[in-house]
Amino acid sequence: MSTQVRISEVSLRDGLQSISRIMPTEAKKECILAAVRAGVCEMEVGSFVPSSLLPQMADTAEIVEFARGVEGLEVVALVPNLKGAQRAIAAGAHRMSIPFSMSETHSVRNVRKDHAAMIAEIGAIAQAVAASPEGQRPHFEVGLSTAFGCTIEGPVNEDQVVRLAEASIEAGAVEVCLSDTTGYANPAQVRRLVRAVKAAIGSDRLNTLHLHNTRGLGLANVLAGLDEGIRTFDASIGGLGGCPFAPGASGNIVTEDLVFMLEAMGVDTGIDLERLFEVRKIFAEALPGEPLYGFTPDAGLPLGFNNSREK
Amino acid sequence: MSTQVRISEVSLRDGLQSISRIMPTEAKKECILAAVRAGVCEMEVGSFVPSSLLPQMADTAEIVEFARGVEGLEVVALVPNLKGAQRAIAAGAHRMSIPFSMSETHSVRNVRKDHAAMIAEIGAIAQAVAASPEGQRPHFEVGLSTAFGCTIEGPVNEDQVVRLAEASIEAGAVEVCLSDTTGYANPAQVRRLVRAVKAAIGSDRLNTLHLHNTRGLGLANVLAGLDEGIRTFDASIGGLGGCPFAPGASGNIVTEDLVFMLEAMGVDTGIDLERLFEVRKIFAEALPGEPLYGFTPDAGLPLGFNNSREK
Repeated sequence: MSTQVRISEVSLRDGLQSISRIMPTEAKKECILAAVRAGVCEMEVGSFVPSSLLPQMADTAEIVEFARGVEGLEVVALVPNLKGAQRAIAAGAHRMSIPFSMSETHSVRNVRKDHAAMIAEIGAIAQAVAASPEGQRPHFEVGLSTAFGCTIEGPVNEDQVVRLAEASIEAGAVEVCLSDTTGYANPAQVRRLVRAVKAAIGSDRLNTLHLHNTRGLGLANVLAGLDEGIRTFDASIGGLGGCPFAPGASGNIVTEDLVFMLEAMGVDTGIDLERLFEVRKIFAEALPGEPLYGFTPDAGLPLGFNNSREK
Repeated sequence: MSTQVRISEVSLRDGLQSISRIMPTEAKKECILAAVRAGVCEMEVGSFVPSSLLPQMADTAEIVEFARGVEGLEVVALVPNLKGAQRAIAAGAHRMSIPFSMSETHSVRNVRKDHAAMIAEIGAIAQAVAASPEGQRPHFEVGLSTAFGCTIEGPVNEDQVVRLAEASIEAGAVEVCLSDTTGYANPAQVRRLVRAVKAAIGSDRLNTLHLHNTRGLGLANVLAGLDEGIRTFDASIGGLGGCPFAPGASGNIVTEDLVFMLEAMGVDTGIDLERLFEVRKIFAEALPGEPLYGFTPDAGLPLGFNNSREK
């Protein structure tokens, strides 16, 4: 039986929020449909932040509603705070994720909350989720961002990440994710931190890694996470995205290269690569001139790839 | 005690042979000196192929002689056949490597020899090495190229690679290397094949991987090899290089990103990254307009990297 891995496609949120151009709502819908046709089953479709801050995300409520109508798709939204969470609940997102920066300096700079204030916010959101009508209760995840280091603070203490993971679960989050916001992570660190957090909060409460390819280590870090039991990886078509508040951080890992690696290894992602390349084309047409990253689309698949697939 | 890994810098051979421009001999010498200043202790400085075929390599004998005079540098040359090997021996290379394509179709197309003829050639070279004067006896390695797949044949049978590794050792090679000429390799395959070849010929006779980043899997494949005991990795400054006879194959893994990953993991490469970035500049000046790859030089090192080095 193959290992199964879920790709959480974040191009419409983490990708788009990092570029100034605004993708039209209709184009976003087209991307969603094409991604689902390619086998993508989870997408982070937007972020409930004020549109004055991120106009690229202004249509998130409409996009969430549309995506909920697409069969077989888990619809994820990012929320920065309780207010955003309430909007996500009202919009019917299946999952929501709040970024919680492990670097307190970055947290204060990014959302004007220190760690204690963030834990309180997580608690308030968990209560809002519990109070929401059954059937409209998003799966609440805390994204531990800058978990592998911060451009402002430098190295982030690993014990601190473990403690804040524990605090997030105690405050009511269902699970956490580890995010390499700044592309600082290396594979040894990924192994160590994933192992430590899983040991502290339970293996089932850390399933996801959000990795960046800032220094080219993205897929090596995926491999390290896979070895440690991670089964969901965030990725972005064409590697769009980064963190506007962590200068120098660029580039989510590329969905196309990630899916190629996993499928080549005999891991089942449920995604059809040729159809995924079609999704990339739609992004390219909707964002003319925007740089897209990744090697596999240009290099093509190896000769005999589809026939020799290891299962 | 940290794990120690050797980087075999192949930009002057695998990098330069794939671009049409000819790097002046003096610039090559400058690159060698700068690389050694950065801590590089092994370089594949050229190839003893007829200069009519590869004019970029016409100065190999002079470069080998120069490099032999640089303290602390293991000088490696590629040889395609017995004649090239005799030139390498005469020039005083410390190590020489012959590419032996695991895809017989590629072997015939590349050097007009089938597998049996190549084994005979390897035997003849081993005899020439044994007959050479002590002190002028290069360490003879066979590079098992297209070991992970071929653009002409497609998948390459893993048992065949093991058999040909055994045959190479029996014919007199001191060790073999596995080369992903076409950038087809995936981490699971790397683990399997390294394990199988080491088991067949002895762990000490397979120490090196030559990987390409054609589909972005280069560093993930490095990680897989490291896990299986590989301790030498070929890489190219700026990711120059590929195989002129395997269409679509491009890009050695990037030395800068590789060294960053290893050093960040606490692996000792002996290389100073800031000085390595200086070597890249020399290449850029010597080859104006030639695309250079890699992410770490542009992204810079993480804040606190030098102080937080894990040892």
